[in-house]
Amino acid sequence: MSQTRPVALPPTEDQAGTVPDAMPARVGSGDRGVSDTADGLTALLTAARQASLALASAPTQVKNRALRGIAQALRDNVAGIVAANAVDLSVGADNGLSAALLDRLTLDEARIRSLADAVAEIELLTDPVGEVVRGSSLPNGVKISQVRVPFGVVGVIYEARPNVTVDIAALALKSGNAAVLRGGSAAENSNRVLVDLIQQALVAAGLPGESVQTIDPYGRAGATRLMQARGFVDVLIPRGSAGLIQAVVTESTVPVIETGAGVVHIFLDDSANLAWATDIVHNAKVQRPSVCNAVETVLVHEAAAARLLPAVLGRLAEAGVTIHGDAAVRALFPAAVPATEEDWSTEYMSLDLSVAVVADLDEAIAHIRRYSTGHTESIITNDIVNAERFLGEVDSAAVMVNASTRFTDGGEFGFGAEVGISTQKLHARGPMGLPELTSTKWIVRGSGQIRS
Amino acid sequence: MSQTRPVALPPTEDQAGTVPDAMPARVGSGDRGVSDTADGLTALLTAARQASLALASAPTQVKNRALRGIAQALRDNVAGIVAANAVDLSVGADNGLSAALLDRLTLDEARIRSLADAVAEIELLTDPVGEVVRGSSLPNGVKISQVRVPFGVVGVIYEARPNVTVDIAALALKSGNAAVLRGGSAAENSNRVLVDLIQQALVAAGLPGESVQTIDPYGRAGATRLMQARGFVDVLIPRGSAGLIQAVVTESTVPVIETGAGVVHIFLDDSANLAWATDIVHNAKVQRPSVCNAVETVLVHEAAAARLLPAVLGRLAEAGVTIHGDAAVRALFPAAVPATEEDWSTEYMSLDLSVAVVADLDEAIAHIRRYSTGHTESIITNDIVNAERFLGEVDSAAVMVNASTRFTDGGEFGFGAEVGISTQKLHARGPMGLPELTSTKWIVRGSGQIRS
Repeated sequence: MSQTRPVALPPTEDQAGTVPDAMPARVGSGDRGVSDTADGLTALLTAARQASLALASAPTQVKNRALRGIAQALRDNVAGIVAANAVDLSVGADNGLSAALLDRLTLDEARIRSLADAVAEIELLTDPVGEVVRGSSLPNGVKISQVRVPFGVVGVIYEARPNVTVDIAALALKSGNAAVLRGGSAAENSNRVLVDLIQQALVAAGLPGESVQTIDPYGRAGATRLMQARGFVDVLIPRGSAGLIQAVVTESTVPVIETGAGVVHIFLDDSANLAWATDIVHNAKVQRPSVCNAVETVLVHEAAAARLLPAVLGRLAEAGVTIHGDAAVRALFPAAVPATEEDWSTEYMSLDLSVAVVADLDEAIAHIRRYSTGHTESIITNDIVNAERFLGEVDSAAVMVNASTRFTDGGEFGFGAEVGISTQKLHARGPMGLPELTSTKWIVRGSGQIRS
Repeated sequence: MSQTRPVALPPTEDQAGTVPDAMPARVGSGDRGVSDTADGLTALLTAARQASLALASAPTQVKNRALRGIAQALRDNVAGIVAANAVDLSVGADNGLSAALLDRLTLDEARIRSLADAVAEIELLTDPVGEVVRGSSLPNGVKISQVRVPFGVVGVIYEARPNVTVDIAALALKSGNAAVLRGGSAAENSNRVLVDLIQQALVAAGLPGESVQTIDPYGRAGATRLMQARGFVDVLIPRGSAGLIQAVVTESTVPVIETGAGVVHIFLDDSANLAWATDIVHNAKVQRPSVCNAVETVLVHEAAAARLLPAVLGRLAEAGVTIHGDAAVRALFPAAVPATEEDWSTEYMSLDLSVAVVADLDEAIAHIRRYSTGHTESIITNDIVNAERFLGEVDSAAVMVNASTRFTDGGEFGFGAEVGISTQKLHARGPMGLPELTSTKWIVRGSGQIRS
């Protein structure tokens, strides 16, 4: 119903410009003095809250206009974005960032166009705001319905991935939320340019520029304030390393949606199809080893180990994967190095794989219960009873039969993009798309009824 | 699908008996030594986690058998429950508990039978476990579906309300969750008897007795441990005073669903029907003033104040309500006492009501935004535009048109009972019934697909 009401008056160009202008210098600003930081951040968070009121009642067509503007601005400003990104990459190289981190930090023309395509795809998705989740008529004639509404202000803390800035801004905007972004000092210049373009598109569409803001210039103090901003921020989503996520979960008084590491398992059952096992394990490990839905551990039924392992592991070895095997694995595949206890709980993010032989499905499930982070696990089997047991008894965000673990992904699931993959059980579990960025309210319509 | 698998073997009578036997003495035990507490609590939490595995795969018919057993045990043991409750009431009276607290603590035959009826009603509700929330086929033929699963272990911290022990145990059981209850030392004897009966019914139905456990004997140290029990407890729900809830939100590292205080508003619009306004305000204030959905503040449109207030407030005054009015209200209703700034943010829990005259709907919404706790607000109006604006712009768990705020209640909404009323936006908002005690998992079924 909020879609049918007129959008609040957009701010003037001047108003939209105040927050960026009031911000500290953009390069190498580092941490600010405490009082400076507190004042500036309070103003920024207040502006976010105010913007969220306009966004909550913004019609879908106005939000879509802003999304089209963002996609166009990205395509029109490739050179400017690449130039700002070059500054971050240069500072990062001087600071000794790893090749993997520098790669994640890089924005080139192809990646920028791909980001614009994702924004255009989000424009096409159904607006979750106003969706009626359930409803009924009470015996006394009162009608109740549970309707999706935006959270209000969403805070996101992530690390040196400027593409996340655009993905989150687009998802937050479509779901009617204001976003406060802490993307890390390593990507400060890239994020600044991206947020400037996003804010211009918002204003051009008649929405407040403060709907999407970055607190990168406030450094660590800004992140700390964001975690304590109860009343200003409705939900906080950390994306990144286990250390970052743990710090946010521990320090935040704002409700957190935890996105977690993936110690991901594939179990090759007695009846596993050899070709499926080989293809799926190869795909899950090799296609993109640095992401959370890549596989870390393969467990194989002892009755099928001799049939499956030589081909499955041979294909991996050809692709440069180091196999960390238990004794039974090493007996069948001598190229494997010995697996240590630590291997079973390590998220490699690299071309490494731990492999163990287990007695049966029970032992596989017990191993997964002990070491899994609850992200994704898959069984390769032709046994319907074992498949159902695996799906029922493995307690992870995604449980699969005969499919690659790489499918646990918002884009693959049809969500356009994803805010992250939740490994917690509260509110959202698995890839988070637009509905996961909403809350609900109960709408109650009566005609004078009272409770007896 | 978990409903189709066989339930795990029930523990023997001996196993079911170990936890209670290992517990400290039941009366006046107070806080235990730190090491004693830590060991006993770790064993108890481990047993809860183990029980949750059996519950998660328990068929609905087995859970329903346990619920029938609990309802029967309550009806068969009225005398024993009343006797244990008498000990708590006597200790409470000696400790100077208020009449309101003693009333909440009291279990008499009628209340026990009403509890048994609620358990029987929960037996009849649809099992939320296994419900398919949504699903689709991906372009490559992979089928995905999002299915409800239990959280696992639910912790609840509440204060001296033994009826909550039964309500929560029944809802947790039906939704496949183990429950760890901290009901407060004031109700320790009542809760002990109730939990004993519940555990016996669980074991008789073939489920682990440790599915429902109390940590009351561990005192405050037990509550603290529960709040830090990440990995053992999946969600923590505090019910009670604002102070209790604030302490849990601040101290807990386990995800919390916040149940909040209700500073509840009714706005009498220019076009309000006089009879509806009079009946609804009276019902919302007088029917049960000590609960969170009772109204605290009435706002009235200035153009309707002279028409509405004499009748609305006169009816309240007859019922013994003290009116705290602003100057405009006192001019129309001289019996009102002056409202202070503090009145606008006070949850009275008593026959007190604050009343203000506002210029229009905008001023009413601004007042509500400033002072509401986001629980429930209602507008009494015959103006469809104002009704829709109120529903859209007031950001509370329940927003109403022409109905009493007392309807925000799990029982009234048809949920059987309620775990509490969430005033947060994450996971659950408003009355929490069975679906709110579940998480989801993604079930992915393929036939060898890999990601390209």
